[in-house]
Amino acid sequence: MLLSKLVCERTKEAPQDAKIKSHILLSRAGFIKQVANGIYTMTMPCQKMSQKIQAIIRQEMDALDGQEVLFPVVMPREIWEKSGRYNSIGSEMVRFKDRADRDMLLGMTHEEAAVHLANHIVSSYNQLPMMIYQLQTKFRDEARSRGGLIRVREFTMKDAYSFHSTKEDLEQYYQRVFDAYYRIFKRIGLKNFIDIKSDTGMMGGSVAHEFMLLTEVGEDSIVLCNNCDYRANMEVADGVIDTPASEIKPLELVFTGEDKTIEEVSTRLQVPQDLTCKAVVFAVKGSADEIVIAFTRGDLEVNEAKLKKALRKDIVPYDGGASEVLACGNIGPMGLDKSIITVFDKSLENINSLVIGANKAEYHYTGFNFKRDMPSVEFCDVSKTRDGDRCPICGGKLRVENGIEIGNIFQLGTKYTKSMDMTVHGADGVEFNPIMGCYGIGVGRAIASIAQESSDDKGLILPMSVAPWQVHICPLRLDDENVNGKANELYNNLVKQGVDVLFDDRSVAAGVKFNDADLMGMPIRVVISPKSLATDEVEITVRATKECKKVAYAKAIDEIKAIIKEQMEQLRG
Amino acid sequence: MLLSKLVCERTKEAPQDAKIKSHILLSRAGFIKQVANGIYTMTMPCQKMSQKIQAIIRQEMDALDGQEVLFPVVMPREIWEKSGRYNSIGSEMVRFKDRADRDMLLGMTHEEAAVHLANHIVSSYNQLPMMIYQLQTKFRDEARSRGGLIRVREFTMKDAYSFHSTKEDLEQYYQRVFDAYYRIFKRIGLKNFIDIKSDTGMMGGSVAHEFMLLTEVGEDSIVLCNNCDYRANMEVADGVIDTPASEIKPLELVFTGEDKTIEEVSTRLQVPQDLTCKAVVFAVKGSADEIVIAFTRGDLEVNEAKLKKALRKDIVPYDGGASEVLACGNIGPMGLDKSIITVFDKSLENINSLVIGANKAEYHYTGFNFKRDMPSVEFCDVSKTRDGDRCPICGGKLRVENGIEIGNIFQLGTKYTKSMDMTVHGADGVEFNPIMGCYGIGVGRAIASIAQESSDDKGLILPMSVAPWQVHICPLRLDDENVNGKANELYNNLVKQGVDVLFDDRSVAAGVKFNDADLMGMPIRVVISPKSLATDEVEITVRATKECKKVAYAKAIDEIKAIIKEQMEQLRG
Repeated sequence: MLLSKLVCERTKEAPQDAKIKSHILLSRAGFIKQVANGIYTMTMPCQKMSQKIQAIIRQEMDALDGQEVLFPVVMPREIWEKSGRYNSIGSEMVRFKDRADRDMLLGMTHEEAAVHLANHIVSSYNQLPMMIYQLQTKFRDEARSRGGLIRVREFTMKDAYSFHSTKEDLEQYYQRVFDAYYRIFKRIGLKNFIDIKSDTGMMGGSVAHEFMLLTEVGEDSIVLCNNCDYRANMEVADGVIDTPASEIKPLELVFTGEDKTIEEVSTRLQVPQDLTCKAVVFAVKGSADEIVIAFTRGDLEVNEAKLKKALRKDIVPYDGGASEVLACGNIGPMGLDKSIITVFDKSLENINSLVIGANKAEYHYTGFNFKRDMPSVEFCDVSKTRDGDRCPICGGKLRVENGIEIGNIFQLGTKYTKSMDMTVHGADGVEFNPIMGCYGIGVGRAIASIAQESSDDKGLILPMSVAPWQVHICPLRLDDENVNGKANELYNNLVKQGVDVLFDDRSVAAGVKFNDADLMGMPIRVVISPKSLATDEVEITVRATKECKKVAYAKAIDEIKAIIKEQMEQLRG
Repeated sequence: MLLSKLVCERTKEAPQDAKIKSHILLSRAGFIKQVANGIYTMTMPCQKMSQKIQAIIRQEMDALDGQEVLFPVVMPREIWEKSGRYNSIGSEMVRFKDRADRDMLLGMTHEEAAVHLANHIVSSYNQLPMMIYQLQTKFRDEARSRGGLIRVREFTMKDAYSFHSTKEDLEQYYQRVFDAYYRIFKRIGLKNFIDIKSDTGMMGGSVAHEFMLLTEVGEDSIVLCNNCDYRANMEVADGVIDTPASEIKPLELVFTGEDKTIEEVSTRLQVPQDLTCKAVVFAVKGSADEIVIAFTRGDLEVNEAKLKKALRKDIVPYDGGASEVLACGNIGPMGLDKSIITVFDKSLENINSLVIGANKAEYHYTGFNFKRDMPSVEFCDVSKTRDGDRCPICGGKLRVENGIEIGNIFQLGTKYTKSMDMTVHGADGVEFNPIMGCYGIGVGRAIASIAQESSDDKGLILPMSVAPWQVHICPLRLDDENVNGKANELYNNLVKQGVDVLFDDRSVAAGVKFNDADLMGMPIRVVISPKSLATDEVEITVRATKECKKVAYAKAIDEIKAIIKEQMEQLRG
């Protein structure tokens, strides 16, 4: 490819809204151009990178006996109504009416389409296990698209759906996909990534894992143990905390005046925050009168994902509406209206003496003891794990890091096959609902993750396996006949041998060429100049290591192919 | 691939709405499954076929220095407002509001996105010519989706956009794409296709060609000369007709009573229909008061596409509204209200003596002569060419055939670069709007066309270049250890050598296997049975020719590879 013709503009400045490295560099290198909020056009280098990633994903899915299919982007309401998700998913799913006034939607995931396809076609247990997957455009109307390709509204995704006769079979297959995901991320050049247990959210099912690239710009919080292998998404992390020491005291109503917050009450009463009880109020989503109060230790935060799971209901922040009970403030567990749903975090269970709200203006109780004063209460885990909490597996110290989700896998169970009436005949002739797994990787997210992790101040450092071009030739002084001839000869010979080459055919200063080469990040840069040709040599620089060597012109192709081979082998691991 | 695991159900019956062969066979072979009206899921065989077609298209586009990019499916109103098409395109374009209440649309073509990308990035004439293309999902809310993949609402399309400094450069490039299209259609195995001049329609521009597969189920009418190379879409075909002989007579008002139609008047007055004048009434679209009357010879039909072009206005059938002038019936050219727009077909120009309506109930004129009675009239071509008319090039006889459009190319001119303010610097420093071409191929339409053309009563006959699997192995009696061992060995060795193989691993009757193999249409069928192995042989059948030969087991791979090579070479041409 000739750089002069490439529709891809390199710039010094990034768009104003570009705050993180991958967004800045992909924009500055001209890989992406924004069309609307969270919607991008990918230029040729980005699309080539996308295709190389897709090819690797395909290889790994095919190796798992995956069958590539193509589901539609636009689907009719009917099949989503069967699964119940037409109504349960919010405004992130685009709905519209077609010209015949039928309700249609844009797919943001394809469980329904997968079951719609497999239903009736797969009718016997001996057709299982079976996995179908696609690489297709999806649209999710994100409220907060951000970070270039990190969180977009339109994206290309690999989504796979497996069907099984037994839970054991699903678990075995799930493990194979799990291993394939490690291979995929390694092969596309990601380094600092992990798998973590995650919440199954709107997908349903029980077991799920996310694959996370650890990076400070990640918007997910991940809890990791410094000692053992334990790691989990903040949403499901169950760090252990000690119960602080305190003496049993009598329950006493005390005046606390205008002091209401944990901090204020703790200061006024000279009680540490971990001996106070915090109340956080929510409403059940779609049912504003149903109030939920989560009680947790004063120094902890409520984990909404855990709370939703405990309640088996979706919740929204309470808007301070019409409840008289709550109007007085100082909310505490005793004497609450029975219509209110209460949830108690396990951090409160064994504390001898707590400060709690008295459900009465200007008053709190001290000396409260759940076992003594409210013995019927049941506790569960609804608080956020913190940096420094103890590991639930080994007791080691936990730390919290940020991460970008680069893939996720779910053991779905029978949620979709049941609701959509898909049954197959078992070996015993009895019909059953197949058990499903589903497995996703976002291709654009992968590109952004690579850009985020593999880059330096000067630009991208693209892994050999996914770089749009493996070699970037920078001839200096193309007006020099020798340079021109040799550079073109090298370019043509490399292309003939199947090497992807970008050729900077512009008549611009060496500095401009080098800056562009650094910014665009191809793995190997070759400089051919009157100076290098004086000794019949070219200069070969590896972008990642900055290692530069002079190589005889006649040996350049061998050297380049050796570097490609070496780097590809490293990525294969 | 093991057939037992393939999510693809072969059936004896096609869906009730399947009327044409490609729809019937693609459904019966399990290649497609309908999700909604005009919306399909492609199963693995269909998706593999699609990918092989896409790979061929990519090769040919890359050979034209095309840069593959990816435009979004969902686009904001703004960029379509600039080109004027947000309003000019009707309900076939899906529009919706996103969660932030912004107007969005689903792309059915990407001229706007192409100019949006190229604008500013391409700023100088020396970056031209340049072509960008994509293979992407499109949605067009067709009123009449039909014929399986022939006319769908959601489809994968290759759309390409080229930008040029001069008209000559566009014309040269256009010819290169034209030639590439011939190669593409030949390489994917289509046979009976032609190119024809076509109307540019909503795309704008002047010159355009459609590539048409000639088939009786086609919904387009194509005019072809039996003698020379002339061919054109009915919309623009300009067949020549002779002026019928008649004597000059005086203009005379005659009573015709209740007789109004051409047939009735011609019979009553004993005048041949080609000596009468037909009036067809339309209204300008969006402006029902603006009436258009097209006059043509009584034996001809008005060609609405030509009429629109002549008027440079969109028209709709006249709904018989409030015009008093027209209420009397018997519409003729003389004495019409001046507010009415009139268009006269060239077929009327030289007739000596015509019967025309008198714009008066129960009366016509005879002996009307345009040159004498309305000398200021200008004529143009607004009538439909008929089977048997004369070729405008050589005077030969024209015939009308049906066709399916398999590709189209347009010389767009500056319609989009002008309206979207894209300029580049010329060699002389003066800015200009680049001249564009655009070039489309629908991948699903190509699959349907192949199925339509390459099939017989038993099923599909897929071309080697695009068949999902090149070889279909049918082992008979898999319970026979020798058959099982040899069949699996052959399968594994073929796969190892890069051959795409489908392996029928089911324990079903030979007839079931053969029927499925015929229906699915892989180019080579290999039968291994106890009988064939008795002489250490396998049976190799070429699907297209039904040629069957016994080949020594040890030579099977060589023979198969030789057939593959031969068929691929034929397709390359």
